[in-house]
Amino acid sequence: MINVEPCRKDIKVVDATLRDGGIVNNFYFPQGFAAALYAANVQAGVDIMEFGYKVSKKLFDVTKFGEWKFCQEGSIRAVVGENKTDMKIAVMSDVGRVDLKTEVLPKDRSVIDMYRIATYVRQTDEAVQMIGYCHDMGYLTSCNIMAVSHEDIADVKASVQKIAQSPVDIIYIVDSFGSLYPADMSRLCDMYGEIAYKYGKQLGVHAHNNQQLAFANTITAIDRGVNYLDATVSGMGRGAGNCFSEALIGYLRSPRYNINPILRFVREHMLPLKRSGVVWGYDTPYLLTGLNDVHPYAAIDFEKAGREDYENFLTEITNK
Amino acid sequence: MINVEPCRKDIKVVDATLRDGGIVNNFYFPQGFAAALYAANVQAGVDIMEFGYKVSKKLFDVTKFGEWKFCQEGSIRAVVGENKTDMKIAVMSDVGRVDLKTEVLPKDRSVIDMYRIATYVRQTDEAVQMIGYCHDMGYLTSCNIMAVSHEDIADVKASVQKIAQSPVDIIYIVDSFGSLYPADMSRLCDMYGEIAYKYGKQLGVHAHNNQQLAFANTITAIDRGVNYLDATVSGMGRGAGNCFSEALIGYLRSPRYNINPILRFVREHMLPLKRSGVVWGYDTPYLLTGLNDVHPYAAIDFEKAGREDYENFLTEITNK
Repeated sequence: MINVEPCRKDIKVVDATLRDGGIVNNFYFPQGFAAALYAANVQAGVDIMEFGYKVSKKLFDVTKFGEWKFCQEGSIRAVVGENKTDMKIAVMSDVGRVDLKTEVLPKDRSVIDMYRIATYVRQTDEAVQMIGYCHDMGYLTSCNIMAVSHEDIADVKASVQKIAQSPVDIIYIVDSFGSLYPADMSRLCDMYGEIAYKYGKQLGVHAHNNQQLAFANTITAIDRGVNYLDATVSGMGRGAGNCFSEALIGYLRSPRYNINPILRFVREHMLPLKRSGVVWGYDTPYLLTGLNDVHPYAAIDFEKAGREDYENFLTEITNK
Repeated sequence: MINVEPCRKDIKVVDATLRDGGIVNNFYFPQGFAAALYAANVQAGVDIMEFGYKVSKKLFDVTKFGEWKFCQEGSIRAVVGENKTDMKIAVMSDVGRVDLKTEVLPKDRSVIDMYRIATYVRQTDEAVQMIGYCHDMGYLTSCNIMAVSHEDIADVKASVQKIAQSPVDIIYIVDSFGSLYPADMSRLCDMYGEIAYKYGKQLGVHAHNNQQLAFANTITAIDRGVNYLDATVSGMGRGAGNCFSEALIGYLRSPRYNINPILRFVREHMLPLKRSGVVWGYDTPYLLTGLNDVHPYAAIDFEKAGREDYENFLTEITNK
C-alpha cells in the first residue's frame, strides 16, 4: 500500500551534519568523526557534503571553535585529499561574517565545489555580491534565505527575485525556526519556484524539527519539485535539529542511495557523541518556540538552565 | 506567514495516553497518574479520554498488567466519579479478546461513553457484531481497522464498507506500523471518506511516529476532513509512540483547547515517568520497521536486547 514516487534523477541529498550539527558543539567533533562521516556519505551516495562554515577568523575567536567553523582548505584536504569521488564539497558563509575576497581561492586551487551563502532578507544585496564573487571564482553557489517565517511575504518575494537574477545555482527554502507546517512549505515552494524556474535555478530545502515536521516538510518540498534536500545524520543540528539523513535516504528508495553506511555511522559515531553529552533533537521547549515562530535561542537557554517550567517559558516567549 | 486553517468545530481531540502508552509499561502507571491526566485533559479541553483496554480477565493474567488493561467500571469511577465534565470516556476492546456480553454494562449504569473496537480486516464481521452490541447497549462506538498498510486495498475497502453499514459512529484510519507517508494517508482518507460519509459516519486518525510522521500524518488527515484525532501526551505509545498531544493542541490554535495543562502534565508526570526508565519514542530501529512496513515488535525486541547493529537488523526484517 505504501506508494512512494520514484526518486527523480535531479534529487540531490545534501549532508549538513558538520555544519548545522557543529552549532551544537561549537564544531568540536571527536577525532576521526569528519573522516568517517565523509566515508559514510560517499558510500551512501550522498551528493553534497557541507563541511562547515567559512567565516572570518578575525570575527570569531579560533580558540573557541573547532576547525569546521572556518573550513580552511587544509582542514578539508586532510579529510578528502583531492576528493576523487562523485560527492561534492560545500561550505557555508554568512553575509557579514566573512570577507570572501581574503578567503576564497580560485576553484582550480580548492577542493571545495560549492559556496552556500546564508542571508537574511535585509542583506539580499550583499548576498548577491557574495554569490557573484564565488561564481566568478569558479564555484557552484546556493543561497539560503533565513528566517523567512518572520518576514513579510512581499519582502521574501523581492529577495528571491533579486537572488534568482544572480548567477546562483540553487535557492534554498529555509525553515529557520521550525515553525512552518507542510501547507506553509508547499506555498513557499510554489512561490520560490514560480520565480526561480523562470531563471533556470534549482530549489533546495532546509528544515528544522521543532514541531517534528522536518522530514514531513522535506517530503512536501520533494512533492513540490524541490531537488536539493538538506539532511543531517540523526538529525544533528541546532536545537531540535534537522531532517534525519537516515529517514530521508530510506524514503527515497533509490538505488543511488544506500542507508547502511549511514546506519553504521549512527552506531559508531552518533550514539557515542550523544552519550558524551552532546544534546540536540526534539524537546518540549523547541516545540514551543517553533509553534510561536520564535528563534530557538530562547529554548536552548531554557534547556541549558535546566528549567522545566514550560508554562512560564511559553508566557515569556509569547509576551516578547 | 504561518497560516493554519481555523479549527473546525467538529474536530475532536482524543487522548489515548493510558491506552497506547499503557502498552509500553503493561499499564503500570504511578499512583495518581491517571487522575492527574484526567484533570489535565479536562482543563485542556480534550474531547475524549481513552482510559485503556477492556479485555477479558480470563485471557490475560491480571497479575501481569495494571488496571487500565481491564478498565473495570470501579477503576474508572475511582478517577472520574460521575464524570461531570464535557469530556467523554472511552475504552478499547479488541476483537477476540473479550466477550462484551459479560463485560459491558448498559450505558445508564456506566460512566463509559464510547467503545472503540479494534479489528484486523479479516475480523470485520466480528467487529461489526461488537459494534452492534455496544451501540444497542447505548454507547458511542468507533472502529479502528488495524494494520491496513499490510492489506490489499480492495480488502480494506470491503472492510470499511461493512463497518460503515453498521451503527458505528466513527471509523478510524490507523497507521499501525508507522509506515504511511502523508500521501498514503491522504489517499486512505479519501477512500475511507468516500464510503463513510455516504453513511453519515465520521473519520478518525491514529498515527505512529516510527518515521517521525505521526503529527504530519495527523495534519494531513485534518486537511482531508478527518475530525477525530488521537494523540498521547509526549507521544507515549508502543515503540516509536504517537502524535504528541502538545504538538496537536498547539497546532489547532483554538480557544477550545489550552496547551498549558498538558505542558504541566509533561513536567509533573511524563518527565518523571521517562526518568523512571519507561522508554518510548522515535529511535533508529523503529524507523527501520516503519520504513519496511513491519510490526514494531521486532524493533522493541532489538532495543530490549541492547542491540545497536542496525545494519544486521535491517537485513533481518527485510529477509523475513
